[in-house]
Amino acid sequence: MTERTLVSQLHAREDGLVSVSGWVETVRDQKKVQFVILRDETGAVQLVNPATRPAEDGSEQDVAALAMTETISGLATGTFLTAHGALKHDERVKLGGVEIKLHSLEIAAAANPETPIAADSSPEKRMDWRFLDLRQRRNNLIFRVQTTFEHALRTYWIERDYIEVHSPKLMASPSESNAELFALEYFGDQTAYLAQSPQFFKQMAQVSGFGKIFEIAPAFRADPSFTSRHATEFTSIDAEISWIDSHEDVARMQEELLQFAFQAVADKHGAEVQELFGVEVQVPAIPFPRIPLAEALEIVKSRGYEVPRTDGDLDPEGERQIAAYVRETYGHQFVFITDYHPGIRAFYHMRDEETGLTKSYDLLFNGVEITTGAQREHRVDVLIEQAKEKGLDPEHLNFYLDFFRFGAPPHGGFGMGLARVLMLMLGESSIREVTYLFRGPTRLAP
Amino acid sequence: MTERTLVSQLHAREDGLVSVSGWVETVRDQKKVQFVILRDETGAVQLVNPATRPAEDGSEQDVAALAMTETISGLATGTFLTAHGALKHDERVKLGGVEIKLHSLEIAAAANPETPIAADSSPEKRMDWRFLDLRQRRNNLIFRVQTTFEHALRTYWIERDYIEVHSPKLMASPSESNAELFALEYFGDQTAYLAQSPQFFKQMAQVSGFGKIFEIAPAFRADPSFTSRHATEFTSIDAEISWIDSHEDVARMQEELLQFAFQAVADKHGAEVQELFGVEVQVPAIPFPRIPLAEALEIVKSRGYEVPRTDGDLDPEGERQIAAYVRETYGHQFVFITDYHPGIRAFYHMRDEETGLTKSYDLLFNGVEITTGAQREHRVDVLIEQAKEKGLDPEHLNFYLDFFRFGAPPHGGFGMGLARVLMLMLGESSIREVTYLFRGPTRLAP
Repeated sequence: MTERTLVSQLHAREDGLVSVSGWVETVRDQKKVQFVILRDETGAVQLVNPATRPAEDGSEQDVAALAMTETISGLATGTFLTAHGALKHDERVKLGGVEIKLHSLEIAAAANPETPIAADSSPEKRMDWRFLDLRQRRNNLIFRVQTTFEHALRTYWIERDYIEVHSPKLMASPSESNAELFALEYFGDQTAYLAQSPQFFKQMAQVSGFGKIFEIAPAFRADPSFTSRHATEFTSIDAEISWIDSHEDVARMQEELLQFAFQAVADKHGAEVQELFGVEVQVPAIPFPRIPLAEALEIVKSRGYEVPRTDGDLDPEGERQIAAYVRETYGHQFVFITDYHPGIRAFYHMRDEETGLTKSYDLLFNGVEITTGAQREHRVDVLIEQAKEKGLDPEHLNFYLDFFRFGAPPHGGFGMGLARVLMLMLGESSIREVTYLFRGPTRLAP
Repeated sequence: MTERTLVSQLHAREDGLVSVSGWVETVRDQKKVQFVILRDETGAVQLVNPATRPAEDGSEQDVAALAMTETISGLATGTFLTAHGALKHDERVKLGGVEIKLHSLEIAAAANPETPIAADSSPEKRMDWRFLDLRQRRNNLIFRVQTTFEHALRTYWIERDYIEVHSPKLMASPSESNAELFALEYFGDQTAYLAQSPQFFKQMAQVSGFGKIFEIAPAFRADPSFTSRHATEFTSIDAEISWIDSHEDVARMQEELLQFAFQAVADKHGAEVQELFGVEVQVPAIPFPRIPLAEALEIVKSRGYEVPRTDGDLDPEGERQIAAYVRETYGHQFVFITDYHPGIRAFYHMRDEETGLTKSYDLLFNGVEITTGAQREHRVDVLIEQAKEKGLDPEHLNFYLDFFRFGAPPHGGFGMGLARVLMLMLGESSIREVTYLFRGPTRLAP
């Protein structure tokens, strides 16, 4: 048997016998000649077969040739097969400048001829049949971009001696808040909660003396909302570092990290992203602009938009406004909004002694929040006070507070939603499009 | 303020002012001189201070010097601090050949003076205080080994164009079996299950035309057992590839992958693992030995051990016996046991047409199973028959069976437990020791 050749390798190969394996994208079954477009994970190639039809005058025909023609006529879109044949370079063939004259076909598994979706089916229907939807070239590209992006993040960290941790997703207490929490029965009388973030456990690594850590893992929120930016399960990108002076050290790491990872994506997939998504992967310049929240609210107001929220935070439209301002003023896709009021931040955010504001930031990418970062409060007495102030019972937080009772370094970090970054990088309208299998309040399958 | 110097960088630095940050490991408070061993994520260094005690005759003393001495006398083990002082190379200092003469100390967070555990506390007690347990140098090393190992795996895959996926952990149906399953209420009237493995979803990537994929992510089993090899949540290393001829293609990839990753660990941490764990990280030669299960049972029997199981599988003692045989015969730590009877394999394992045995393997490392690998059945009619034979209702598997109704390539893959590999590589007695935060039937915290 000839060894499999990937479609992307065909152009560099000399004419001669080859085997390619993939799935049928289209069949053009003309009277005298048949064309099959076969796609694999690297590209598509045209297979060609001179049709041999039963002679109208009943005269004898080559049995194998007849059978081959019939097989091709009956090929359903999506059928996976291996094709053996003669590779021929021909500049007139638009698809890669090569074609394969078929000698034989081996069908691995024939597809049901009625494909339930098309590229323009509704998002819900495409999600029902996500495994077919993912065969589209642009969907495949999303996950190759994801792979490159994540590997670049990890490479950045590993070159700087970060430790990778896998924190538990089953917990005895909520990791962030009592709202939007999935609970389950755990061996009869216990209750386990699904981690809403690795927050407590990545801080634990700091008091364990790990210095710098990262984790890329699922997180869970029983969030009933149906927006384009929310899911009940999502991939969270987290890092936490010790011995920082403020959240500014975290921001500096994150912007460098993102520049590095965007560069990797631009280098490897820039042209293809441009072709299939019509957007340019822009490698962000550092430093990213930084705007304190109070100033951001002023800027938004001066642009004629009054944020309707009463808690002093930006709303999605406010975020878009500030992003437009940053684009116009700095030509930048990213902006750190800093210095949030403690009232709208978690109890564990450290506060600036002079201003009373938290040493924290949100990072917006094209007007959408992708990250919250902060320096954490590591002094247990201050932490208890801040928890009480938020109406939390320190008793319930004891396992977490214990972390800080036996010594702790100043530390901070960030969490970033993978799907949000991909969505914005590729100019997609929803995280559903860039998630392998989306999970939402009414979506648990496939 | 002087910039922080990592302890590992001190030796290469010239004598002069430095700042180091870390936690107090020990204090030796002698009458005339005080020593503090300060550890950070890279090593430990001796800080030294000439003690200034209140004069017995009541004569005046330097106030700052008195305060510094008192501060050091009061330092609790575990206190995190930054020390400023004068670095001095001195070959007589055993710990790294340097010491720092203290100028000043900044305490970040003082530890409670009563440390609840020691290095020789019981495993349960150490787990209660895991964040302190992890400060031990050898525990820290475990996670640096983990980091290097995983990055090598991913690098191997990425250099070969694998796609990284994040499959959902919330599912509408069980992913493997109805036993040992965690269930939770999902938005009122729905039930979600936690994925026992990414099995179905990594196969889905194959019918989606992804070609080759990997995932490293948590998996969940409501397994009530308390062995050294089981956890209710564990990190599963998974890969799946298309267009294979048999499980042999999967085995070949896995042995190459492991050789590559063990090499990375040996290169980076070999000496330190030898020092702290007393074991050599052996880079396995390829190919690994392969022994069909029937032959393995014969070998075990000929060594005087009769496997008490009636299902024809090896038991843990049988696995140890075959590992001893392999070590004696081939000088190898790994062995693939192949050709399992369908009765002891999942319904989706493909069967050999001639022998009727599954095209699957288990991989043993030092006598413990770390992996099951297989070619999967991709023909939907055969798959349905095999499911029925196992007493499964194909109706309940419909979402999975659908994957194969619209074309599918021949494919296969493996799942490997990260903690088991680390445990065996480092010669540890339990996966609990090599898991960041272990989860078991009675262990949900911290």
